[in-house]
Amino acid sequence: MTAYDYPLTIGKLLVTPIAQKSAAPIVHRGRRFSYSEFVSRLHRLANVLAGAGIGAGDRVGVLDWDSHRYLEGYFAVPMMGAVLMMANPRLAPEQLAYTLNHAGVKALLVHPDFIPLFQAVRDHVPSIKTVIAMSEDHRAPEGLCCLGAYEALLEQAAPHFDFPELDERSTATTFYTTGTTGLPKGVYFSHRQLVLHTLTLLSNSALASRNGRVDRETVYMPLTPMFHVHAWGFPFVATLGGLKQVYPGRYIPAEILRLIAEEGVTFSHCVPTILQMLLSAPESARYDLSRWQVVIGGSALPRGLYEAARARGIEIYTGYGLSETCPVLTVAQLKPGIEGEAEAAARISAGLPVGLAEIRTVDEAMRDTPPGVPGEIVARTPSLTPAYAGETEASQALWRGGWLHTGDVGYFDEEGYLHITDRIKDVIKSGGEWISSLAIESLVSAQPGVAEVAVVGVPDPRWGERPLVLIVPKPGETVDDSQIREAIGLAINEGRLPRYAMPEHVRIVEELPKTSVGKLDKKTIRARYGVG
Amino acid sequence: MTAYDYPLTIGKLLVTPIAQKSAAPIVHRGRRFSYSEFVSRLHRLANVLAGAGIGAGDRVGVLDWDSHRYLEGYFAVPMMGAVLMMANPRLAPEQLAYTLNHAGVKALLVHPDFIPLFQAVRDHVPSIKTVIAMSEDHRAPEGLCCLGAYEALLEQAAPHFDFPELDERSTATTFYTTGTTGLPKGVYFSHRQLVLHTLTLLSNSALASRNGRVDRETVYMPLTPMFHVHAWGFPFVATLGGLKQVYPGRYIPAEILRLIAEEGVTFSHCVPTILQMLLSAPESARYDLSRWQVVIGGSALPRGLYEAARARGIEIYTGYGLSETCPVLTVAQLKPGIEGEAEAAARISAGLPVGLAEIRTVDEAMRDTPPGVPGEIVARTPSLTPAYAGETEASQALWRGGWLHTGDVGYFDEEGYLHITDRIKDVIKSGGEWISSLAIESLVSAQPGVAEVAVVGVPDPRWGERPLVLIVPKPGETVDDSQIREAIGLAINEGRLPRYAMPEHVRIVEELPKTSVGKLDKKTIRARYGVG
Repeated sequence: MTAYDYPLTIGKLLVTPIAQKSAAPIVHRGRRFSYSEFVSRLHRLANVLAGAGIGAGDRVGVLDWDSHRYLEGYFAVPMMGAVLMMANPRLAPEQLAYTLNHAGVKALLVHPDFIPLFQAVRDHVPSIKTVIAMSEDHRAPEGLCCLGAYEALLEQAAPHFDFPELDERSTATTFYTTGTTGLPKGVYFSHRQLVLHTLTLLSNSALASRNGRVDRETVYMPLTPMFHVHAWGFPFVATLGGLKQVYPGRYIPAEILRLIAEEGVTFSHCVPTILQMLLSAPESARYDLSRWQVVIGGSALPRGLYEAARARGIEIYTGYGLSETCPVLTVAQLKPGIEGEAEAAARISAGLPVGLAEIRTVDEAMRDTPPGVPGEIVARTPSLTPAYAGETEASQALWRGGWLHTGDVGYFDEEGYLHITDRIKDVIKSGGEWISSLAIESLVSAQPGVAEVAVVGVPDPRWGERPLVLIVPKPGETVDDSQIREAIGLAINEGRLPRYAMPEHVRIVEELPKTSVGKLDKKTIRARYGVG
Repeated sequence: MTAYDYPLTIGKLLVTPIAQKSAAPIVHRGRRFSYSEFVSRLHRLANVLAGAGIGAGDRVGVLDWDSHRYLEGYFAVPMMGAVLMMANPRLAPEQLAYTLNHAGVKALLVHPDFIPLFQAVRDHVPSIKTVIAMSEDHRAPEGLCCLGAYEALLEQAAPHFDFPELDERSTATTFYTTGTTGLPKGVYFSHRQLVLHTLTLLSNSALASRNGRVDRETVYMPLTPMFHVHAWGFPFVATLGGLKQVYPGRYIPAEILRLIAEEGVTFSHCVPTILQMLLSAPESARYDLSRWQVVIGGSALPRGLYEAARARGIEIYTGYGLSETCPVLTVAQLKPGIEGEAEAAARISAGLPVGLAEIRTVDEAMRDTPPGVPGEIVARTPSLTPAYAGETEASQALWRGGWLHTGDVGYFDEEGYLHITDRIKDVIKSGGEWISSLAIESLVSAQPGVAEVAVVGVPDPRWGERPLVLIVPKPGETVDDSQIREAIGLAINEGRLPRYAMPEHVRIVEELPKTSVGKLDKKTIRARYGVG
């Protein structure tokens, strides 16, 4: 048999921009590379890494802002048969060191901005044999005892590397996800999974008849960091498509706005906070954002931010996914005929499952919940992490029943849009039904006098759990029990909350426990108030 | 390990139209099915076939016009683990019988129009155990001794079939390709190959910024028969996308034009002959075709037909592929900035390689030819037939050097568009260079007095081969040698033909040998004139 068994490997994504002779550049800090130059730099990078002893299966970590160099790492490292480890510079040093050690990182590519962080972890990660400075120029900065500066090393490297034919199931990338508790957990993705993520994401974009288009005239700029879940996978999509790509470095609002204008950026993705930052930057009003399409993910898109973005002419809508899912599971493309308030609701929802994605909302026995009824969101796609690296128990829980458990609760509406209502660990399980803590919190937070609110489930001998509402009043104001019950009662009568959502317990408190990043710490809240 | 290893099987293509709750119908002869109804009919069809003893690996043949029933066969048969055999009703009975026997067809689904053909082959194909009538109604026609009529059988069948989880590499479809010589040869494609063909085709459509879009508001109607190379793969694309699909039955120009208007068809694909037939139909001028996009393939798009289609406002462009390639290798999407005469040339060219397709033009030693220089077109994609069924020698020739040999000669231009210049067996190999017989024929055919022309290579002791030009003059007219040489000389001086294309031999003949379908029979021409 002499037929070629075409493997779905990351290097194959480069065939198309070269074959279609894309004239679009890859841009970073004023430097512009053609796709041919980009490919030739991959060869040089592979020679640099191979010269430093990196081979098949070795872990190569990157600590960088969004740059064309990072994109080169996305390709050259897996194409060598090595594994790209996207290190997270937002972690505390001990957490970062844990992840680098757990992955067994052998070479680390470090941007000079992260030298202090690197110095804090260096002695705790004995596996690191090689360090390369991700400098903007040819100089390696002081304080980084390293092989050299990336650009200088590339310049000296041989221009051809003989990339091996790889098994599509070999691991290409890994990174760590941090929950509210416990140590970071490693997820990992094969070449095949990343190629299929790319194809399903791009082919899903084809179906867009209103929002959600990505075509060869799109100008792409990530605003989700490249160390975070493959920048949601879009750099691979943009490369396969031969799109113009703009890499913004560290996220500085004035610089991002300037790039959008000067480079003609038409497509980005980010968390709500980044968009909020851009809209409220002092220079923001000077810029025309009406040609800009933005996918929002990472957390729910607040209605106010949605309205503000629409008022600026931004083509805004959501996507949904997790570190464990590569990540994209859903995208809120508008179907024909969805207009007015339904359009806003659809754009803010998590969206429609992308091509090939099997997504269910299930009860605890893994039975499908009907449309409109929340259940845990579970998924099967070609691109889900097979496990948490080295964590048997957590992996089995992740894949209980052969479906990946997202830990999120949501429901599908009649049009197929997924709406997320809660985290499963925060949902209140009452008499076999699920009550969304977020839905009650959202309602109560809009009542006069309410500064903060938390709703948690507390044990109940008859129903299993019942909602407890905890309220911090605004300074100098008072909130009373009956006012809150009245508001909830009204929502129940109007069908916005289920009947069993009426809380028996409403308590006024002085403050609510928070996590280090300022989110409600529901675990502590439950521990503190759960008895009562 | 409890993770789900998502297989690329044809049944997975149905996940998305259902999940995205497509409201679009599948239409045939006034009947309209929702995607849910379509899926439930697949279950019933599988039960009918299983009841008739069809199981994993069995071949199920279909002899039908384009219908929703054929589409059901595209899905239900492979989803059972059986293999769909697309029988070609255009074959002579003995050829059809050969293909049915070679495939070992166990059940055959026959449209009543093909009863005479079926009766002619029936006794020669002992493997057929079950026959189902693809009638438009519940009645099985006379003359077809069969299990029953498709619609009646579906109605009686149980509504749920337990489709097995399949290995993505199991064979899903097979059909036969007929060359000008020899017996038909069987090609075959796995589930994985068809899913990847669907994803690469749809994701390639995403990149279209000008022509070539297929989105969820597209209304699709095939005009390449479903028995021919999966109707170029578009029924799978349309189903994954949840598009409205219109199946036209037998191709009758008036009926096709009516369907385009009444069903709002916006996307089709066909060979030039079909488009020519539609444009020249008596009722054609009454119809607005300006919302219609048509991909032309199968043979070169003549400039005249292109102009006629553009004059009607049709969004026309080409695609290229073979039975052996699933089929799509290239699509002539316009890149930004390609305008005017370059636009026409691009739309008429074979087009740009689709996503992941590796396509080269090579000389006999498999070295790449430079841009502009013709060579044999060879390919690697995820969706190529691994062999000709049971034909070791032909399979090795097909895959010589690990690349699929198309048998076509062409070159890439500077923008990446592929231009096909000849069939390799017709190209004239002169002094190490290739001369396109088609290029000379095209030029000579435009000369006054020329009714028909054929150019073939004849043996030459010094150059290997040299072109021989054979001309049939128009009735009552004469053509002379020097006039033809002069025209060719002009083309050479203008760089439209290479210098070594000037023929030593021009002969005036009374007629030219043709094949049964009216094409020039160059094999016979070479045999008859090759000595001289």
